[in-house]
Order: sequence, then structure tokens, then C-alpha cells
Amino acid sequence: MALINENYLKLPGSYLFAEIGRRVAAFKAANPEANVIRLGIGDVTRPLPSAVIEAMHAAVDEMAKSESFRGYGPEQGYSFLIEKIIENDYAARGIKLDTDEVFVSDGAKSDVGNIQEIFGVGNTVAITDPVYPVYLDTNVMAGRTGALGGDGRFEGIVYLPCTAENGFLPALPAVKVDMVYLCVPNNPTGTALPKAELKKWVDWAKANKAVIIYDSAYEAYIREPEVPHSIYEVEGAKEVAIELRSFSKTAGFTGTRCAYTVVPKTVMGYTKAGEAQQLNKMWNRRQTTKFNGVPYVVQKGAEAVYSPAGKEQVKATVDYYMTNAAIIREGLKSAGLEAYGGVNAPYIWLKTPNNLDSWAFFDKLLGEANIVGTPGSGFGPSGEGYFRLTAFGNRETTEEAISRIKTRLKL
Amino acid sequence: MALINENYLKLPGSYLFAEIGRRVAAFKAANPEANVIRLGIGDVTRPLPSAVIEAMHAAVDEMAKSESFRGYGPEQGYSFLIEKIIENDYAARGIKLDTDEVFVSDGAKSDVGNIQEIFGVGNTVAITDPVYPVYLDTNVMAGRTGALGGDGRFEGIVYLPCTAENGFLPALPAVKVDMVYLCVPNNPTGTALPKAELKKWVDWAKANKAVIIYDSAYEAYIREPEVPHSIYEVEGAKEVAIELRSFSKTAGFTGTRCAYTVVPKTVMGYTKAGEAQQLNKMWNRRQTTKFNGVPYVVQKGAEAVYSPAGKEQVKATVDYYMTNAAIIREGLKSAGLEAYGGVNAPYIWLKTPNNLDSWAFFDKLLGEANIVGTPGSGFGPSGEGYFRLTAFGNRETTEEAISRIKTRLKL
Repeated sequence: MALINENYLKLPGSYLFAEIGRRVAAFKAANPEANVIRLGIGDVTRPLPSAVIEAMHAAVDEMAKSESFRGYGPEQGYSFLIEKIIENDYAARGIKLDTDEVFVSDGAKSDVGNIQEIFGVGNTVAITDPVYPVYLDTNVMAGRTGALGGDGRFEGIVYLPCTAENGFLPALPAVKVDMVYLCVPNNPTGTALPKAELKKWVDWAKANKAVIIYDSAYEAYIREPEVPHSIYEVEGAKEVAIELRSFSKTAGFTGTRCAYTVVPKTVMGYTKAGEAQQLNKMWNRRQTTKFNGVPYVVQKGAEAVYSPAGKEQVKATVDYYMTNAAIIREGLKSAGLEAYGGVNAPYIWLKTPNNLDSWAFFDKLLGEANIVGTPGSGFGPSGEGYFRLTAFGNRETTEEAISRIKTRLKL
Repeated sequence: MALINENYLKLPGSYLFAEIGRRVAAFKAANPEANVIRLGIGDVTRPLPSAVIEAMHAAVDEMAKSESFRGYGPEQGYSFLIEKIIENDYAARGIKLDTDEVFVSDGAKSDVGNIQEIFGVGNTVAITDPVYPVYLDTNVMAGRTGALGGDGRFEGIVYLPCTAENGFLPALPAVKVDMVYLCVPNNPTGTALPKAELKKWVDWAKANKAVIIYDSAYEAYIREPEVPHSIYEVEGAKEVAIELRSFSKTAGFTGTRCAYTVVPKTVMGYTKAGEAQQLNKMWNRRQTTKFNGVPYVVQKGAEAVYSPAGKEQVKATVDYYMTNAAIIREGLKSAGLEAYGGVNAPYIWLKTPNNLDSWAFFDKLLGEANIVGTPGSGFGPSGEGYFRLTAFGNRETTEEAISRIKTRLKL
């Protein structure tokens, strides 16, 4: 009899976006004349940079001829891309990496989901709260948790609350933790960790032989000089941190799929007997066994992100979104709302007025201003009373949304 | 302290292709004038069909404009592709599938590697022997085995020998088995299971509430009418079988990455308490949590495989490889060797002459005919004494290789 992985049954349904869809549909049915603006979407809207388009066309043409056709590539990614990543994203910041420390993949979501496989099931995991749900869900699936409690927290997971009260800076765990996920800049709060804060985490991990899984998918949005672009800017991080990056939000690759994960050869995990093992070797084994690399055409597109034209085009797109972010953030503030994030990230995290719960504010914003956002409680218990807006819309719609918030929202 | 997944330590190094590389390099160093032909490669060499090239160019152009840009797509794949898959690969053979029973992915290797996650760790797994190593390795990593024994077999795995003695037809397990991997047409033996054999497996799975993971990545190479193109041609299979397909060997997508897995809603797994659970729902949860879909450009390319021009071009490429297969198979036979496969698959499996072991024949073939193949023992203990050649080379090289085997190999 084929038994299932019963850990899956611990997960509640994917309620958040389904419920948003249901409420929006009901509102539209009741108000067919309303022009609903979506500022809840976590997906980019600007086209791929033209340097990427040109590179992809050229790569497609290569696939059309026997002489230049590419079959299986290295599971870890082509060296033409890995070398560009190291040169631009790391060496330029004084970080030295070997080519076999960078693993190109089809997305940060895949890497976030898969990286936990190389760790023991008995490890205690810490996550910041609120946070991108994949960190938690994949550890539930792997059996690193107990059941979901009535308080919205899974037994066995260490939640690190990040709220306005602590400036969205997670405190070091008070209990034993073996793996911690840090998302910097953060989805959903839009906040980042300055170098001094990050150093506390690196020191903590070294002292505890813990591993930091550092998701910096939104690195391209960092503007403040005190926020490191890579955790490896912090001394000692190469002994304890795995860093995940993506082309999705940097260069519009959400529908094109390319990301990478850095696993320095100096990061160790341990056997129960206490013997140190290179996580780099384990991740290499995982990827070569269960993955067959990113499409050649896509890797050529990603390579073009690092060309002079590509860099300029990517910067223009990120600037476009960040101007949206400033419009939203300042607009909310001038409307009298408390708003966070939006400075080093494309997300704006607002405190709901009058202590409304997240869903009540969702209904209010939809009903009064015809704007769809994302209830903060969908990202974890400490997201209750908050709400996420994103900067990925177009300029006109973003401006219209803020104008409505100022004029139509009854505060 | 971050503990590792110690199951990884049970795996031996990826020895096979590294050792082949080492021996070829040593041979070339000693014989710099030798013109070495590689017939060991499991990768395609013909370019992408022009219908695919055109569709990919058009899709790249869509990504260049805001109006037609595509961000995140459905994790399960776009319906434009899923509908074509169902219509052409299933409905045309009388098999009815719903669109939510087909999951598009970045490769059969990924799906083969990941599908075991939805199953309990305590299940007993059976694999045919010899076979594609990913079935075994991913179950070792998941902890469904004990240690590797001195006989080359992992404790806890049920090996089903497939040799010339039993006509490469695996016998039903004599012990309790919960999950079985069948690769049809088979890599490496190049043989297939006729419908009557497959029916035994479906009946066995139903009687035992077991699940068949049916890898038919080489389906496009089936020529004999008694070999089903899908396991769902067998009555009852939709209750017990998950089927994996790929565009890799069909349409030259090894470097372009697209595949799909069919999980009918009628296939059940069970809780320890005996409650039936839809594996379709579990796989959907796995894919939506840990995967973000296949690039839009690639899915448009895969869709074009089903256009009238695409079908014709794919058929021409498969015919090309199968002509190579016939040349190899008949050439080996006329050279006095025992050869199997190559009729419904691009692989030819030969019995080594004079009871040479697989590596001894490797050295003999390389030394006398300057041809590189793959030692059968690399695919499992029952592959010892066999050797794999593939039909994916070009015509001229394939003919030259056979001519050398006939004239230079000392039998």
C-alpha cells in the first residue's frame, strides 16, 4: 500500500490569494461600474530589457543549427553566466567566489523549496514573521514541524516577530535554532537589515554552528548605503550562509525563470556524530541528481543582464518601480497612514488605521477606493493589522490609486 | 548545530561518467592520432524543429512589449500547452484527461526526482535493474533505503532484474512493494513492455494499492503496435499510475527544458490509518509550493511541437535517430554480437562477447575501434556484462563506428 507523506496534511489550503480572488469577484459583481486597481500583485509588469531580448533571439537561432545546437548543459549552469554573476554581483563588492560555489537555477522559489532537503529532519527552523510562505511550507512538508496551532503557528517552528515595535528587526532566537531564513530586503515588510544587524546574525550562526539561508531576491532595490547587497559583505558569513538571488525582480524574469544560489565551500553542516560536511558538495549532489539545468536560451538572456546595455536597462526598470514605491509610500503618509518599506524594496507595508484587522482593511480599501492589496495576516500571525501594497504596477495606475486613497478612503 | 541529511552519505560518488572521461582522456593522451567516436552519449544532437524556433522567436518578441509581456504563469503550465498535450498525446489514443491532471515541468529528471516527496518514507520501492539511476538515488536521499551492500544493491530496495534470460521483462515483485518505477521504452536496455505485460503490472498495483511511476520519456520512439504509448491504454491504469513524459528526446529539448507529468485524480495514496488521498492534490501542492512554472518562451516552443509542421519535423528527427538505431543494431548483429533494443528506443544494449565484464569491453572497444560507449554495470548490478550504445549521433559517424566494429574489433 503506497503511503503518502502525511506532513502535507498539516498544511492549510492556499487560502490567501483564493480568498482575495473571491472577495474581488463578489465586489465586482455587486459594483460592475467600479474600476478596480490591483496593487497587491507581487509580479513585475515591465517588459524584458532589450539586451535580454536580443540575446534570447540570438540563442534561439543557435538552437536552429546542428553546429551551434545545445543539448544538456551543466546542471549547475553555464560558466559564461556564472563568471558574469561572480564578476558583477560579488567581485565588484570585494567578495571572492569560485565558479563551483554558484548554482544557476530556474528560480529562487525552487531553490528556497529544495535547499532544506540537504538538512536533517530534526533541525529546528526559525523564520521571521511575517514572511514569504515558502520557507515555512516546505519545512512543514519535510516534517520539521508539528501541527498548526490555533494561534496560527506551527509547533516546532521558531517565529521571530518583525513589527513596527521592533523596527522590523528580528531578535536573535532565545532557544536553540539550527537553520534560519532571512529575507532581505523583506517580502512583505519592504524593510532591510543594515550591516550591523546582519553581523549579529552571522556571529550568532557561527557560535551555534547554525546555517543562515539568506534570500536576497530583492537585492536590486537596495538604495541605502548601510544595507549590504550580499550577506558575504559581513565577515565570517562565508562560513555560515547560503545566499539566494533571482533575475525575477531584477530583470523581469518572473515568466522567464532564472535565479542562482551561492553555497561557499566553507559552509558546513554536521552529522549527528559531529563531523563537518561541506554543504556545497551536498547541494551539488542534489542539483545534479534532481535537476537538469536552466534552458540555454534563458541563460543567454540572463548573461545579457550584465552587459553595459543590460545594466542600464535593468537600472531604468528598477528605478521605475522605485519611483512607484516612493509615490505610494509618501502618498500613504500624506494621507495620514503609517507606512514602512519602499526604500530598499518594491513593497510598502502599512499599518491598518484604527486597529482594523488586515481583512477588514482589505474590504474597506476595496469598497471605498476600489483598490486591491494583500492582507498582512496572510504572511504570518505578526502580519495581522498590516497590509502590503506593491510598486510593480504602471505609473498612471499607481498615481490614480494614491489619489483615491487620499480622496476616497475614510480615515 | 545544523545537521545534514545523512542519507546523502549513503550514495557513492557519480562514478560512471567521470570514469569514462578519465579513461578516454588517458587513451587520447597515449594515442593522439586516434579519431575517437562517442556513441555513449544520451543527449540529442539534431537542432530544434523550425516550428519550435519560430514559436520561440515570436514568444521572445511578446516578452519585449508591456502589452504582451508575461510574468508568472500558472505553476502547472499554461492551458494552451496542456490542451495540446491532452488532445494529441492522450485523446488521440482514446484516453480522457482533465486539464488539471497534467503538470508541465522543466524536465522529466526533475519530476522523477521530486515525485517521491509526496510519498511516505516507509514505502518499499522497486526498480528494474539495470535502469536510469535517478529513481534509485532520489529514494536513497529521501531515506527509503539502508546502506549500499557489497553486491552493489541498496538494502531495502527491491531490484527487478531485466536480462536477456527473461527477455528484459521484469517479474512482479515476490515481496511487498508500494511504489515501482517502470521506464518504458527502457533506458538503458532499449526494450519495451507490450500491453499484456503492462496489464500484469496494473493488475498487481491495483491488488496491492501500489503506485506505478511510469517514465515514458522515450515514447516517441515506439514503433511496434503491441507496445502502448501510454500506460493509460491499459484498463485500470488511471487508478494506479503516474506517467512522466518529456520533450527532450521527442523534440530535442534537452537544453531547452520542458516535460510533463500526468497524475489522474483517481490515483490514490493512503494514510497510515488507511484513508485514501488524491495524489493529484498532493502533487499540485508540491508544485505550487516549490516550483514557479516553465518559461513562457519554452512553453510556446513546446506548443509548436503539436502544430502540423512541428509534428512532421519531430517525426523526421525521430526517424533519423531510429535509422541510426537500425544501423547500429543490425551492424552489431552482423558483426556477431548479441544486440537488443533499438526497435522502440534510441538505445542499443549489447551483450559483451566472451563474458567480458562491462568495463573490460569498454576498454576493448575504445582500444581496438576507438569508440566510446557506456558500460552496462553503471546502470545497476544486472547491467554487468552488457554495454549501451546510443542512436543520437550523426549518420556519418554512426556508420563509421559500425564499420570499425566490423573490421577492427577482435571477436
